[in-house]
Amino acid sequence: MESHAGIFHTLPLGERVQKKLENLIDKYMSQLGASKVSLSSISSQALWQQTNRLEGYGQELFRFTDRKDVPYILAPTHEEEITTLVAKTIKSYRSLPLRLYQIGRKYRDEIRPRHGVLRSREFVMKDLYTFDYSLQSALKTYEEARCAYNRLFDELKLPYLVAEASSGDIGGDLSHEYHLPSPIGEDIVISCTECSYVANEELASARPIPPQDHYSTESNNAQAQVWRGISKDRKTLVNVWYPASFSDRDINTHALKSVLPGLDSSLENAIPLWQSALNSSSQRPRLLNIIDYRLGQHFATSLKNESSQFPMFPTQTPVELSQLDAQYITSSTSGEPFNTIHIHDGDHCPRCTSGKLRTQKAIELGHTFHLGTKYSDALDARVQVPSTMIEDGQVISTKSDNITSVSMQMGCHGIGVSRIIGAVANHLADERGLNWPRAIAPFEVVVIPGRNMEDDATTVSRSLTEASGIFAPIDLALDDRSESFPWKLKDADLVGYPVIVVLGRKWTSDRLCEVQCRRLDHTEFVPVDQLREHINKLLSQL
Amino acid sequence: MESHAGIFHTLPLGERVQKKLENLIDKYMSQLGASKVSLSSISSQALWQQTNRLEGYGQELFRFTDRKDVPYILAPTHEEEITTLVAKTIKSYRSLPLRLYQIGRKYRDEIRPRHGVLRSREFVMKDLYTFDYSLQSALKTYEEARCAYNRLFDELKLPYLVAEASSGDIGGDLSHEYHLPSPIGEDIVISCTECSYVANEELASARPIPPQDHYSTESNNAQAQVWRGISKDRKTLVNVWYPASFSDRDINTHALKSVLPGLDSSLENAIPLWQSALNSSSQRPRLLNIIDYRLGQHFATSLKNESSQFPMFPTQTPVELSQLDAQYITSSTSGEPFNTIHIHDGDHCPRCTSGKLRTQKAIELGHTFHLGTKYSDALDARVQVPSTMIEDGQVISTKSDNITSVSMQMGCHGIGVSRIIGAVANHLADERGLNWPRAIAPFEVVVIPGRNMEDDATTVSRSLTEASGIFAPIDLALDDRSESFPWKLKDADLVGYPVIVVLGRKWTSDRLCEVQCRRLDHTEFVPVDQLREHINKLLSQL
Repeated sequence: MESHAGIFHTLPLGERVQKKLENLIDKYMSQLGASKVSLSSISSQALWQQTNRLEGYGQELFRFTDRKDVPYILAPTHEEEITTLVAKTIKSYRSLPLRLYQIGRKYRDEIRPRHGVLRSREFVMKDLYTFDYSLQSALKTYEEARCAYNRLFDELKLPYLVAEASSGDIGGDLSHEYHLPSPIGEDIVISCTECSYVANEELASARPIPPQDHYSTESNNAQAQVWRGISKDRKTLVNVWYPASFSDRDINTHALKSVLPGLDSSLENAIPLWQSALNSSSQRPRLLNIIDYRLGQHFATSLKNESSQFPMFPTQTPVELSQLDAQYITSSTSGEPFNTIHIHDGDHCPRCTSGKLRTQKAIELGHTFHLGTKYSDALDARVQVPSTMIEDGQVISTKSDNITSVSMQMGCHGIGVSRIIGAVANHLADERGLNWPRAIAPFEVVVIPGRNMEDDATTVSRSLTEASGIFAPIDLALDDRSESFPWKLKDADLVGYPVIVVLGRKWTSDRLCEVQCRRLDHTEFVPVDQLREHINKLLSQL
Repeated sequence: MESHAGIFHTLPLGERVQKKLENLIDKYMSQLGASKVSLSSISSQALWQQTNRLEGYGQELFRFTDRKDVPYILAPTHEEEITTLVAKTIKSYRSLPLRLYQIGRKYRDEIRPRHGVLRSREFVMKDLYTFDYSLQSALKTYEEARCAYNRLFDELKLPYLVAEASSGDIGGDLSHEYHLPSPIGEDIVISCTECSYVANEELASARPIPPQDHYSTESNNAQAQVWRGISKDRKTLVNVWYPASFSDRDINTHALKSVLPGLDSSLENAIPLWQSALNSSSQRPRLLNIIDYRLGQHFATSLKNESSQFPMFPTQTPVELSQLDAQYITSSTSGEPFNTIHIHDGDHCPRCTSGKLRTQKAIELGHTFHLGTKYSDALDARVQVPSTMIEDGQVISTKSDNITSVSMQMGCHGIGVSRIIGAVANHLADERGLNWPRAIAPFEVVVIPGRNMEDDATTVSRSLTEASGIFAPIDLALDDRSESFPWKLKDADLVGYPVIVVLGRKWTSDRLCEVQCRRLDHTEFVPVDQLREHINKLLSQL
């Protein structure tokens, strides 16, 4: 329940769901050999200055000072704190690999909190931090963490996607995202219909198809148009040349950033900004032309010709092309033809020959990062390693002939706990209510007695909650509230218990329980002695 | 481990201790029929203004604003939030009694954080809030909560004291504290050596013993002296007259506050403040004389005589006694002789005839409050009740002939989770290390193998962690780290596992495990087939 804008209280049933999800995470973290810790929600601004992240987060940080005017933040993530903690306590490679995780609250002053707990300002996350003494060992850790994530999401029985991802502000160069496709998702995930290729839109690329004839002849140059952007420092004007069959909105700014990381993708009016920068700066202005591969090499050549029909900038601009540092880009950093256009359904998969790409909106539920030494360098988190165990390029300083100090190789692996709860609630809900997967349902089963069957219901419930032979106890709620029978049935649908056991008319006549499962579209009358087996069979599918 | 001043990270073993304590609390809260919730750590200043607590907390609140300049606080307690939540969702008496609790972080910008987690700025508490529609039902709830607290502290096997307490800023008029006696405690608990009387120093009183002869004669007036205090509004000078056999430090300011709640007990220099207030105020200044019963009635009489040898205020003060509103107090609000002196060991118990009082420093671990309608009135938390069910004095407004709206009767019951961990660690530690009670030990047992006995230790451990017949699985750690055998033994003592099982020389020769229990001063060699029973016997005493 929302208490303040984007801030929520968790009520009893939600609390049970969260506890179950936490237990599930504990199980897989324990399999990974990770130990649970609990870091303070309060972090100091001084620490965040050491890693240069204080300014980057900007207004998303809740900042405050204590009574002595020491500046703090409410931590949105804990790389700084955990690295400092490990730097203080771990000195030798023999204590590594080290895997520490926590499940706790994090804070982000979102500009637009929305979709309830899917994007709230106080949220619960699991964050695992890994420490290794070599890159090789860190990559092994990364793979183990990914496998644990796969098993965890498998147990949730959700149609999740694992996407290759860019690592954004957090740093590092190996990263995967776990997504749940959803129309209210804020990410776009690209997947191949044939092979296993899945990537976040920011990283995805389609295989370029050689330009068709009508693009490669001069007569078709008229079909090109330009999108103009500018760098954040206002010194570089960017012209993106692309076929007129697409529109401005199709321009893939993520792809542009691969050649101009400083591109200001939030602006629409580049020319005036560039013009005023021209006047105020003494530097030689830069003009970057990015040419979509679909326009063909012929177009690129004609563009370089000053007499081209395509103006590099508006003619009234008081500058000559010869005064500019003009560059022309026709291929990506990896040497492939440059694709300036967003991926569309039906584009060609970059990995396989026959697959087509599909775009889906999705909710990000988890993220794995290999961080490398970004934080351990900045915060001096080093261990002593015998020189003989060091790989190339890892040595920081040699203390003696035998022992060397290296920055720890780190990984960071997050799961959005409140995000998963919100996404699952949203994904599996139907018009009658929620529909929890068994693994995180507040209760696996609810027993609803008809009038005057309360005592029988207690007996039935007790038989299910006791361990019996090979069967584990069932996590069950008995609805003994003083509401009406129809109200209880409706409420059970709303809450979304995986299985509902009703003691109704058939109980009175034949001692049969009605077992309902909305998700499997299942209703059956079952005698008590077969009840547990019947329920277990249903639960195993949920 | 301290991350910033008074702010701590919880490491893996501490996290296990905390988890066990949380599970223990969950057990007793569940017995009480309380449901678990989780309220936001962020609360709005506007809400706290409605209950007039924003200013009272003053600098102890961490305050901040979000990007839209809305003012928030990090909540030190949750009466405001829970009352608002319940007011929104509960409308009928049929939903009551309602008992909601949470275990979570709270924040207090302590002026002097100290003793680690015993007084930290971020700490974990369990807080239970109860809602009833009548006082009678609320008092029943209060008693049930107290019983649950007793059972919980019993299971921790600590020598706790339950003290009658004053309810301080939180409001309400029925309150008990749960204390652990400790030399580093910041509270003082008074208990009787004979009867069950236990009270916090703030509330405790000793039975006044009639003044002895030498106090009651005029000649002994010379043995009186005065302590001067002043009210927070600087309008009332307080003279406390007491026997010269005591000193300033013996003055019981709690007792003084019972007749002058506005007393500023933090000041030492009352006279100058009173003098400057005399000049600036047009009101008739007040002079309050509180006379300790030990000085006798005769002294009080002579004091009222203006020619008394005892000056009401320094002679140089530019005011006449006749200009003052002078009052003389010789008995407490309940009509007993006024005792201005702190309770000392050996004072007489107020409840029984023969008992003597004992003072002990103690750490407060828990607190129960009956709040009444303080918060429900302020935040409009009311339920509809049939008029026939209303007790006298409870009616707020009558909606119809039959239905009445009443403010809910609330209770609030806290347990300091990090405080208990700190207090227990401190209380049971000896020179070799910590010493956890079984109920919250990170592991109940540690198994330490000698060299080349690792495989045998795994087998032994496995036999103990599997459920077997009537025996529950033992919560056990196997120390399979690559450290030396003596180092592991020392570390096990430091950590404070209740029971240590060593596979050493006697294992090689006779297949006997060495079972150690430092707290019970116990060491015995036990064959494997008797190990579990032996360990269970020890654990049941810890």
